[in-house]
Amino acid sequence: MKNTLYFKLKNKEVQESAFDAIVQEQKSIGYYALPEQDITSLLEYADTISDEVTQIAIIGIGGSSLGAKAIYEFIKPVRKLKRELYFFESTDPINITSLLSQLDYDKTHFLVISKSGTTVETFSIYKYIYSKNSHASSYTFITDPNSPLEKYANEINASVLYLPTDVGGRFSVLSTVGLIPLALSGIDIQALLNGALTLKKSFFNAGYMKDTILKKAVYYARHHGQYHINCIFAYSETLKYFCEWYIQLWGESLGKKQRHSAFNVGLTPIGLIGPKDQHSFLQLIMEGTRDKSVTFIKIEDFQDNIIIPDIKLKHLESLDVLNNLPFSQLINMQCDSVIEALLEEDIPLDSITIPKVNEENIGSLIYYYELLTSLVGELIDVNTYNQPGVESGKIILKEKLEKTIAGKS
Amino acid sequence: MKNTLYFKLKNKEVQESAFDAIVQEQKSIGYYALPEQDITSLLEYADTISDEVTQIAIIGIGGSSLGAKAIYEFIKPVRKLKRELYFFESTDPINITSLLSQLDYDKTHFLVISKSGTTVETFSIYKYIYSKNSHASSYTFITDPNSPLEKYANEINASVLYLPTDVGGRFSVLSTVGLIPLALSGIDIQALLNGALTLKKSFFNAGYMKDTILKKAVYYARHHGQYHINCIFAYSETLKYFCEWYIQLWGESLGKKQRHSAFNVGLTPIGLIGPKDQHSFLQLIMEGTRDKSVTFIKIEDFQDNIIIPDIKLKHLESLDVLNNLPFSQLINMQCDSVIEALLEEDIPLDSITIPKVNEENIGSLIYYYELLTSLVGELIDVNTYNQPGVESGKIILKEKLEKTIAGKS
Repeated sequence: MKNTLYFKLKNKEVQESAFDAIVQEQKSIGYYALPEQDITSLLEYADTISDEVTQIAIIGIGGSSLGAKAIYEFIKPVRKLKRELYFFESTDPINITSLLSQLDYDKTHFLVISKSGTTVETFSIYKYIYSKNSHASSYTFITDPNSPLEKYANEINASVLYLPTDVGGRFSVLSTVGLIPLALSGIDIQALLNGALTLKKSFFNAGYMKDTILKKAVYYARHHGQYHINCIFAYSETLKYFCEWYIQLWGESLGKKQRHSAFNVGLTPIGLIGPKDQHSFLQLIMEGTRDKSVTFIKIEDFQDNIIIPDIKLKHLESLDVLNNLPFSQLINMQCDSVIEALLEEDIPLDSITIPKVNEENIGSLIYYYELLTSLVGELIDVNTYNQPGVESGKIILKEKLEKTIAGKS
Repeated sequence: MKNTLYFKLKNKEVQESAFDAIVQEQKSIGYYALPEQDITSLLEYADTISDEVTQIAIIGIGGSSLGAKAIYEFIKPVRKLKRELYFFESTDPINITSLLSQLDYDKTHFLVISKSGTTVETFSIYKYIYSKNSHASSYTFITDPNSPLEKYANEINASVLYLPTDVGGRFSVLSTVGLIPLALSGIDIQALLNGALTLKKSFFNAGYMKDTILKKAVYYARHHGQYHINCIFAYSETLKYFCEWYIQLWGESLGKKQRHSAFNVGLTPIGLIGPKDQHSFLQLIMEGTRDKSVTFIKIEDFQDNIIIPDIKLKHLESLDVLNNLPFSQLINMQCDSVIEALLEEDIPLDSITIPKVNEENIGSLIYYYELLTSLVGELIDVNTYNQPGVESGKIILKEKLEKTIAGKS
């Protein structure tokens, strides 16, 4: 994985102090250590699921689904996987009915994922599905040790797996939360962790990534006032759900009150897919308000060398220039052309190139963004790991639910 | 369709002059008249496609695909449709290969949609598919009259349909561009236009929508400096692709240099789906920088009354409060709770309620957003209908392609 920054920055000092803060933070924040974990017990658990199970339904929302979905949707188009994953992430009845119509209960194992064990969406869906299929052996629960959900699972004799301590939902993709569904689908989770570990070592052991990520984080923090919208522009459809994962990670981690002031600060994440969004959002980047930075993500080798055939179409001769070109070369030329065009407009850019679509590379990319998020959070003085802003809506909902019950009785 | 604004605005005068400008603009901008069009010839064309064709592949990008996709994906989960639609929107070879593997050439009709007739993405994909299946009867071309593409289509004796004049790509969903694929899928395009017409009349004939849309447009324009990120928060998975359509419409129309100044202005569109994004982007809205407005979209009646069963789970008694609740009621209570929570934070909000998932309502919603975009464009002094910023990337690509050829010969 390469990362080229097209902007300049000095400030060695700020970078070093941010690095020191992260080295400290490692001791209390659990996600940093996930690349080195021993996955023997996870693989043993995965082996207990019968080969007759061909569908895995994940009942979880936010951090409990976005990471696994990002990796699954990245790998799926290039690999024949062992099992299909289905994600129940909404209380939309149309969505629930539509997803359930695709499942065969006899061939489905359900993973119920909730850190706290009391997520409204997850348990309304679980109750509905459990009313259709009450075999405890069809369910595995992933939750915090000693949560009410663990106690419930034990009560019905269903399997329970645990989240490691001090790992927040949106940083949990490389823990049981992401690894269990991915292992069940047939994705190589050791390779995924290896990719994350490579990135981690390059950062913490003063390799290539240390300087690069630090520079980028300091640039984002220092220019927070102007460039407060941070776009990922990924040139492959396989990265569509990676962008959704990024949006949660970035938005929920960095949109906060500052620790030492009353300021509301935040950096707004945008996920774009090229070349499609050249025909949509690009105009706004190019000629709109100068408040956006852009990170291009390219795949060097698509390993799918379909070529534009050498066909001349009468009256469309201007398109002959495309003939004999591999699509993989075309899409990367499209990306490079947009980079060049934006550089002329003096918009802060960088580009990440990953060699190909596999587990190692998505593992590296995920860890890269987690580190970047932690660094920027530190530099803009927010608590990167909480989300107090979503509580008030939950409390209002609870009041409404209680009123509804009171109204009925 | 109801639209409740939770912010205040006076300025009757600015509203009236914006209204007058739009009344004038109607004469030269083609999209306004689309709801009244006669679709007889479109339906006749659709009837010429054999019932043995069960798959429609749309080869088009940006304005040539986003509108049809938004409506198709909205209706599909609630309706058994006649044919499936597939969208080829990317030069990503993995995506092309994956989509083609789902098609049976004997049962597929291809719609090649390009206003100019020279879109790089569209024709690289077309050439590839044409090399696999060169039966002219498998293709219909939709383009501008007298374009090179029309001439090519006539050359190979394939069907050609035309875009109406003065309708730009991102405003073309209610023209042949959107109506043909939708009619072929079995969606009721007359009902779609009727919905748009209802909205149009309510606006232009001084109905309920005139005041509402004008107020909202003036508010967005006047507070452009502060609230320059405009989120749609739609509480149904069916509106996911509607959000993508909105992002193109809003971003590409409003991100511009001003007509009478050198300022780069723009309003940044964000598409969110509830309740999922309560667990992602909501924290940033709630506690991040105060630069966002939010429009909630709710569906009143999901017509899918699945109910959370009356199951008590030991140790999870706090969730009993969900029992016996229809999911449709839960999801709307979730939306209302977030609205209440955000109102306490003094964030500019409005909510749109559509009665149910059908063609009329999505037609109204689309026309509502088109009108709103035109009004805001007028009020922030940009040319809403061009996209000059995307040209420089295209020119650079062309140079690169020519160099590649020169290098080979």
